[in-house]
Amino acid sequence: MKRILIIGAGRSSSILIKYLEEYSKTYGWKMTAGDLDINLVKEKVSASTRAIAFDVFNEHQLNTEVQEADIVVSMLPARFHPLVALSCLKYSRSMLTPSYESHEVSEMKTRVKSQGILFLNEMGVDPGIDHMSAMQVIDRIREQGHELLSFETFTGGLIAPGSDNNPWHYKITWNPRNIVLSGQEGPARFVQEGTFKYIPYHRLFRRTEVIDIEGYGKFEGYANRDSLKYIEKYNLQGVPTVYRGTLRRPGFCRAWDVFVQLGATDDSYIMHHTENMTYKEFINSFLYYSREDPVRTKLYQYMHIDQDSDVREKLEWLGIFDNTKIGLKDVTPAQILEHILCRKWALQPDDKDMLVIWHRIIHRDKSKNTPAMHTSSMVVTGDDPVNTAMSKAVGLPLGIAAKMVLTGQIKLSGVYIPTVKEIYEPVLRELVTHGIEFKEKIVPVV
Amino acid sequence: MKRILIIGAGRSSSILIKYLEEYSKTYGWKMTAGDLDINLVKEKVSASTRAIAFDVFNEHQLNTEVQEADIVVSMLPARFHPLVALSCLKYSRSMLTPSYESHEVSEMKTRVKSQGILFLNEMGVDPGIDHMSAMQVIDRIREQGHELLSFETFTGGLIAPGSDNNPWHYKITWNPRNIVLSGQEGPARFVQEGTFKYIPYHRLFRRTEVIDIEGYGKFEGYANRDSLKYIEKYNLQGVPTVYRGTLRRPGFCRAWDVFVQLGATDDSYIMHHTENMTYKEFINSFLYYSREDPVRTKLYQYMHIDQDSDVREKLEWLGIFDNTKIGLKDVTPAQILEHILCRKWALQPDDKDMLVIWHRIIHRDKSKNTPAMHTSSMVVTGDDPVNTAMSKAVGLPLGIAAKMVLTGQIKLSGVYIPTVKEIYEPVLRELVTHGIEFKEKIVPVV
Repeated sequence: MKRILIIGAGRSSSILIKYLEEYSKTYGWKMTAGDLDINLVKEKVSASTRAIAFDVFNEHQLNTEVQEADIVVSMLPARFHPLVALSCLKYSRSMLTPSYESHEVSEMKTRVKSQGILFLNEMGVDPGIDHMSAMQVIDRIREQGHELLSFETFTGGLIAPGSDNNPWHYKITWNPRNIVLSGQEGPARFVQEGTFKYIPYHRLFRRTEVIDIEGYGKFEGYANRDSLKYIEKYNLQGVPTVYRGTLRRPGFCRAWDVFVQLGATDDSYIMHHTENMTYKEFINSFLYYSREDPVRTKLYQYMHIDQDSDVREKLEWLGIFDNTKIGLKDVTPAQILEHILCRKWALQPDDKDMLVIWHRIIHRDKSKNTPAMHTSSMVVTGDDPVNTAMSKAVGLPLGIAAKMVLTGQIKLSGVYIPTVKEIYEPVLRELVTHGIEFKEKIVPVV
Repeated sequence: MKRILIIGAGRSSSILIKYLEEYSKTYGWKMTAGDLDINLVKEKVSASTRAIAFDVFNEHQLNTEVQEADIVVSMLPARFHPLVALSCLKYSRSMLTPSYESHEVSEMKTRVKSQGILFLNEMGVDPGIDHMSAMQVIDRIREQGHELLSFETFTGGLIAPGSDNNPWHYKITWNPRNIVLSGQEGPARFVQEGTFKYIPYHRLFRRTEVIDIEGYGKFEGYANRDSLKYIEKYNLQGVPTVYRGTLRRPGFCRAWDVFVQLGATDDSYIMHHTENMTYKEFINSFLYYSREDPVRTKLYQYMHIDQDSDVREKLEWLGIFDNTKIGLKDVTPAQILEHILCRKWALQPDDKDMLVIWHRIIHRDKSKNTPAMHTSSMVVTGDDPVNTAMSKAVGLPLGIAAKMVLTGQIKLSGVYIPTVKEIYEPVLRELVTHGIEFKEKIVPVV
């Protein structure tokens, strides 16, 4: 009897738990799911799963639970994975996570391999499904002997058109803290037509490009973290353009940039006297002093926002000039901004989210010696605010991979991200049966 | 016989060494000066001083030398002071530095006090002379019973008018690395008319104000680090405006901001392929890709620099569009920019630098109940590229303080910055005899 340990029962875990509970019936597996908040677990599991209060910093509990499991899926915030990984190393247990492979976990490579276990990271979405679908196309192009000229990929966690009823065309469909901090992981890095490019955070949201996805309209994309890392991971050495991006609806980035320019997304210091500060005073603390100008006037003047700009509508709609008190103590600007956004961008009971992935790959045809553009896109919509598209797209690949490791369909050992055929082929195939499918199109480049 | 240990023999140490050698003759003190590069020491000392090759990471050497000294002056980069401080604690030796008091050193407060020794930081200039001259005025105003309404102070290490022959009106008169990184220590923080204000780094150089100093013309000032820290240090609780700033000549900041906006001052990551990269390609790596536009055009377009803007002249003069190779490997953008600047902003043999400090303090007169503005300014010019104004303004206060500790004129123990009368009164008095003098003026505020 195989045993599965799932750590973390946040929003992204609901579909994962459901999926693995389903297969546990078939295979007779035993599941344990734990979270600091046991009620969060209880909401998500059926009677067959053991729900526990779990504290990753309780070393004894961590070791006991890991030792009793055959496989561990860590849904904790990324910074806690190394702790889980160390325990998994200790008891030779495989570990799956949806997070970016951290430096600490990368360094465990040799020990993981020698123990015959698998640490599979970036197995959700952005990173995850995007890796798998991209590599499938890239590998196919290469197998046909064509030369890769350009690889671009964009992912966005957005709101479905039917629930899109605010001027930002955006709601909180994933971790709100990460929404506020998006782009702050160092400069965005990529290679374009052979030139390495670097965009500092304070310019990121003004360097967007427009993307049109058939049936879903226009989006704008901004560069996502360090694309250069993926040259090696995707085996794209020498390819002139390699770019990973994040999608928003058009107009979002320019308005968001106002917060970036102000310094309102800064998470590095505690502001003074925030408890009795109003939203308007929060904004004012980033503006020049004036005896006469109201805060609104100062902001529009400082940011060169014209009277007819749609940025005004977006900012006004958020209520940033309200005299509402923040009521939070010892917080950073980013935490205050998150607080303001959560009030307005919350998913409503009838809301559905939408996840979009779009790849654009250009290759030079081996026989015709002409370039051809390959687009591949996926759009998934959530069922409701619990069973979101994001939860499906994170939970299903993880669940499928966990199942395949337990049933022996995936036999790899070592530290991996899902860029290898042995993982992406069966996982993508099963994802189709769950409605997660890519539409491909090849057109000649004029 | 008292012994003095001076660690670090960079540019700022020359006057310090000369000053203490002079008084060593009078008092029969014995001096040791050390630096990683012993030749740097030998250039600066006379035969009476023991010159040694000194490595702060050589714990044995550090402990031996500290133990043999009565007082230690650390001229090392700020990050090394805690190492020296630990050794000074071990052997109960007083330590003087020109650097900002670090968190690590602050935390040694109780132990330093209980050992009866003195750790005196911020004893050069900005921080240093500025503290002393400001506190002298502030204390005097308070003793007269007036109410403080506003405290602003600006310091700039600049080039003397006679040597000012480039469009930036700037040359490297102090640590070039710190010139490039200036402003990156977190958001600038200050209080203005009772409102706490925060300026992120990427906005800092566009939030300047103009200052006119009689006989020296106009300057522009930008906010310097965390002024809020000085509310406590200067005892300015409740004062509506507290602002510390850095001075440049007008037009500097707007042009410098181009590098900030590009991301060219970023010191957090290593760029790719910099060895064979040209200056122009360095600039291009921060710009959008274009099949047609030359780098120069892209930069001016991206930064909205009009054809008649003086920013163009400044940038062109630096040679940033040259095809000169950088020739450096594994370097950050900030290191490359420093390399480009050093070529053009180097002090020439006949050049003289200039140090400017300017305070503006407003108080409400006790008897007349009207506000009055108090300005206090100091301008010091260097003798040559070795005996710079900066070297005098850093070395003299340190030397004077060291002398006064050794002769028992300063009897304090604990961790201090020179905001106490016992230090600033005698030091400022002696500085006047070296030509470092403040001109004061009081005018009513209209």
